[in-house]
Amino acid sequence: MSALDAIHALRDALGADVVALPEEFGDKRVADWSGLPSARPLALLRPRNADEVANALAICTRYRQPVVTQGGLTGLVGGANLRGDEVALSLERMNRIVEIDAVSGTITVEAGVALQIVQEAATAAGFYFPLDLGARGSCVIGGNLATNAGGNRVIKYGMMRDQVLGIEAVLASGEIIGGLDKMIKNNSGYDLRHLLIGSEGTLAVITRVVLRLRPKPTAAATAWCGLPDFESVTTLLTRAQASLAAGVSAFEVMWAGYHDAVITNLNTLRAPLADAHPFYVLLESVGADPARHNEAFEEFLGAMLEAGVVTDAAIATNEAHARDFWAIRDAPGEYQRFIPDHAAYDVSFSIAQAGDAAQRCEARLRERWPDALVMTYGHLGDGNIHIVVDVPGMGKHDHDDIDRVIYDVTREFNGSISAEHGIGTKKRDYLPQSRRKADIAAMRAIKTALDPLGILNPGKVV
Amino acid sequence: MSALDAIHALRDALGADVVALPEEFGDKRVADWSGLPSARPLALLRPRNADEVANALAICTRYRQPVVTQGGLTGLVGGANLRGDEVALSLERMNRIVEIDAVSGTITVEAGVALQIVQEAATAAGFYFPLDLGARGSCVIGGNLATNAGGNRVIKYGMMRDQVLGIEAVLASGEIIGGLDKMIKNNSGYDLRHLLIGSEGTLAVITRVVLRLRPKPTAAATAWCGLPDFESVTTLLTRAQASLAAGVSAFEVMWAGYHDAVITNLNTLRAPLADAHPFYVLLESVGADPARHNEAFEEFLGAMLEAGVVTDAAIATNEAHARDFWAIRDAPGEYQRFIPDHAAYDVSFSIAQAGDAAQRCEARLRERWPDALVMTYGHLGDGNIHIVVDVPGMGKHDHDDIDRVIYDVTREFNGSISAEHGIGTKKRDYLPQSRRKADIAAMRAIKTALDPLGILNPGKVV
Repeated sequence: MSALDAIHALRDALGADVVALPEEFGDKRVADWSGLPSARPLALLRPRNADEVANALAICTRYRQPVVTQGGLTGLVGGANLRGDEVALSLERMNRIVEIDAVSGTITVEAGVALQIVQEAATAAGFYFPLDLGARGSCVIGGNLATNAGGNRVIKYGMMRDQVLGIEAVLASGEIIGGLDKMIKNNSGYDLRHLLIGSEGTLAVITRVVLRLRPKPTAAATAWCGLPDFESVTTLLTRAQASLAAGVSAFEVMWAGYHDAVITNLNTLRAPLADAHPFYVLLESVGADPARHNEAFEEFLGAMLEAGVVTDAAIATNEAHARDFWAIRDAPGEYQRFIPDHAAYDVSFSIAQAGDAAQRCEARLRERWPDALVMTYGHLGDGNIHIVVDVPGMGKHDHDDIDRVIYDVTREFNGSISAEHGIGTKKRDYLPQSRRKADIAAMRAIKTALDPLGILNPGKVV
Repeated sequence: MSALDAIHALRDALGADVVALPEEFGDKRVADWSGLPSARPLALLRPRNADEVANALAICTRYRQPVVTQGGLTGLVGGANLRGDEVALSLERMNRIVEIDAVSGTITVEAGVALQIVQEAATAAGFYFPLDLGARGSCVIGGNLATNAGGNRVIKYGMMRDQVLGIEAVLASGEIIGGLDKMIKNNSGYDLRHLLIGSEGTLAVITRVVLRLRPKPTAAATAWCGLPDFESVTTLLTRAQASLAAGVSAFEVMWAGYHDAVITNLNTLRAPLADAHPFYVLLESVGADPARHNEAFEEFLGAMLEAGVVTDAAIATNEAHARDFWAIRDAPGEYQRFIPDHAAYDVSFSIAQAGDAAQRCEARLRERWPDALVMTYGHLGDGNIHIVVDVPGMGKHDHDDIDRVIYDVTREFNGSISAEHGIGTKKRDYLPQSRRKADIAAMRAIKTALDPLGILNPGKVV
């Protein structure tokens, strides 16, 4: 049984239109955004429905042919990249919205539909789909599930895991599991959905899903705050969560080092406050009932200024003004322009320890590289901190050493080496820094139970 | 290797204080509230910490000795009951609150602590722990996790699954997995937490957990509404979720049959509205900022009356008044007084189909038992309906036939046979009504992967 036999069998069963050979799919992009090495697939499978996926995987199992499932290819950890002995299974043709159920508040979609299409369909139906990230136009729902995507509004709405009611998926054997369930509560046996979510394509291929829709917010308020110390940042967070009736929809903290570097290096950005502060917070609340909502937001911010929790603040007077605040927080999209070779981290801690952890990371980095540029920011309401590091003349060796510094501190604070991006191949060797040996053994046992031949996304995660 | 050898080895390793023999634990209750058959355990293990649990399970694995983990024994499906060849592992001594972290908003507890103790500790620390159910004084956190408990406030705060940050557990082998993580976001490998939640003690013994605390609500409003039809009920739900800024914290629907039966049979209850209506809804909103909150709630209800969505309504004027409304919804605690032999169901559907599904259940029951008492009510915001059935002179045979009617309709509507109570032994034979054959095979493969000898809660769920 050679890979050639597998591809012949696939082509016989599914046709040349579904199973393309390298000379047919040409130079089509088949690697993610990580920049990590990737090979070309032996064939590119583009099934049109769950039955074709099932058929393809059953054949791959018969021939022990490895398969890498690919969605929008916007991942950052090499999770969809190839070693060279695999076929790629692209969900690009499974990109339809199946149904919107306005009474149940659900949208049923194929796994290859782009996140932005789902957001737009929800809005058109009078609802809101809250998951949002920069890659919204390219990333697809199946990939959002495979990586349990996060983003800016997790603090109010949760991660991708929290948006899902039903998942239909195909196991390596070609058997279909799950379904298009719309029940919010379902305690009938093990929750296979949650096991598949975040498993990065190693346990099954997700084919269709039922997502939960939320009411469309009709009120929003956004403020940019300057704060004196990290304790004030956590105080502001706790008080905002207790006082703002609609809840906090974004709480993005930026250390001064981040703020100053992006304002200095990107001339499209302007500092919202006149003076410098050790910490900045972008605070946002969304809800219903604009008059009461905005009045309460202003009252709250006034109380925080009076209490000295916030030193200075600006409230966005309109949407364009709010977008200017968000542009500072979204500056990482523009890093390439001034630090093309930077190292970037996506770690999480308890909220209480995030400040100390970030401080220790920076101190350790400066011991070794006194001139390092260290930019720290993130979704503090979720304990999720991004750290971006640039050292003069950075090479591969420095990059590995910086990895070690960050992940050592992460272990010391019992944090996670991957808050939202996943493990892929990039962080696989560091997984023991975040998980016990027995956890990893249990993951491997589950992997073997569901994919005994190891044909699904081999070499990823575990 | 006999069971006797196992018990000797356990007693040698852990001492007589931890491993009690039948003559020592006497007539202590060791069965749940289901009334299903249960045997006495060969020994009762009461470990004091995770290491003792690990030690005990390693010995049980060595001797292939089955173990049933027991918490508060308040389950309704036989999930903690015994066949007769098992030892019982009680978490009653692991009942301490380990830590409250007010900055991170977390509480760390041992798995044997009662739900009500956690609620009280949260309140004392200025927070709120939202999960709530009638058995709060007896049920324990480990059991709430093992069954993914629900309750009345799922619509705003989610189920037990949504309250958990970290889980430490012991596998059948005696290895400890997981830990006391406080990260809200953690995408480092498979999420073993979510696999254990709802697995009813068949995959591991949960020993300690980190739970998420919420801000304590400072405002609450409660209304009792009479509605003309099911469509109006779902309209009220959708509009309330979109319009009430703080969100809906309870949306309990009662069909007229339920309302009339409990008001007639329980003389402590009084109907809140003068006229009869086909449907009643208990609507509650909790949040911050009482003045704005209550004013908005009244405005919303006024608009619903004007639109004819709600025919008549009463707003609770104080807490005692609100408790009177809740007493009607909580009447199931008193059923034994007028229908001692009833059959009770906990099913879920999409919100849109819940009305038709309930109607079909009632129609099918009446075809066979024209005089049946059918009481339908539930957490409609979660698609979760409870159906209680009493037929004249009900015997075991009737009970089985009623099961079949309800679960057939559940399958026809693609619903779940267990929204919140779990499977245990009671619903095991009906699991194929809610889950695919391939799902059940996958669950069995996972069970075998994590508990190869099948010593944990044998015969339950799968």
